[in-house]
Amino acid sequence: MEFELKRASEVLRQTPYALSRLLEGLSPEWIQSEGNEADWSPYDVVGHLIHCEETDWIIRVEIILRQEGHRKFEPFDRLAQFRSSQRRTLSDLLTEFAHLRNSNLERMVGWQLTPAMLELTGLHPELGEVTLKQLLSTWVVHDLNHIRQIVTYMSRKYLDEVGPWKPYLSILQ
Amino acid sequence: MEFELKRASEVLRQTPYALSRLLEGLSPEWIQSEGNEADWSPYDVVGHLIHCEETDWIIRVEIILRQEGHRKFEPFDRLAQFRSSQRRTLSDLLTEFAHLRNSNLERMVGWQLTPAMLELTGLHPELGEVTLKQLLSTWVVHDLNHIRQIVTYMSRKYLDEVGPWKPYLSILQ
Repeated sequence: MEFELKRASEVLRQTPYALSRLLEGLSPEWIQSEGNEADWSPYDVVGHLIHCEETDWIIRVEIILRQEGHRKFEPFDRLAQFRSSQRRTLSDLLTEFAHLRNSNLERMVGWQLTPAMLELTGLHPELGEVTLKQLLSTWVVHDLNHIRQIVTYMSRKYLDEVGPWKPYLSILQ
Repeated sequence: MEFELKRASEVLRQTPYALSRLLEGLSPEWIQSEGNEADWSPYDVVGHLIHCEETDWIIRVEIILRQEGHRKFEPFDRLAQFRSSQRRTLSDLLTEFAHLRNSNLERMVGWQLTPAMLELTGLHPELGEVTLKQLLSTWVVHDLNHIRQIVTYMSRKYLDEVGPWKPYLSILQ
């Protein structure tokens, strides 16, 4: 499927609300951080999504749109959430994520991106030259990837409890 | 984590609403059925979840709780949704799924399941003897598994559009 700003925005707009409906009201055992940087809990993932809204996606869009100087993105800190969000409730983080996402989508609408602008490029610190269209497509898939990470983490809590059904559940493989 | 009816119900209760928030308002390209029995779209998955509410989980719970006769479950039709739900809107299916799920959870509350009842068994047509606790744990993981299937399906729509980011996105591997 070809990238189209309208369709991408549809997914980006839903993510904070889908996560809220999935996670609000769950017992701490499903969601709380275990401080494990190699296996993020839902709490850790939402902290990461907040950090992305603040320092990654929209900042990189701006660097591309300005087309000034080296157009190079700052490296992103993948583990910032383990330092910044450890004393807040998940509900508080979900609200902040929704607020940041909405405000970033509003900024994007304001730029009135044209097909020509979507082909402008910036320099990723590891990947080299990337287009605005690729960056926005990645923003969408990154959301979906982290929803997947959350449900996979949750399902593993019942790895033993499902007993003989385990081979039938691809999420547990 | 040990199975506990309260914690399992929390997830089961959220699933229809999480799916609605994830999928309502998306363009058809993200969700519509392609009639591919080997690669289910979000539309196909929601049809499957409805069929499970109607013929699988709660029916099997009842067979276990009755403890009469052979206690054997009927085999489940994994592809029923490709025949039964092809002319309805996704929004309609999501509403029906929420309705069926709520009503099934109410029935479960009514049974006042005790720890002893959770150890009762039934006969799965392929897996043999399974406990009620294993069945209910599988119901939860099955929900999460299908959310994972939906976001994986959606992300693959942008397999080419993310360009050089592809190796960074585990959902696309």
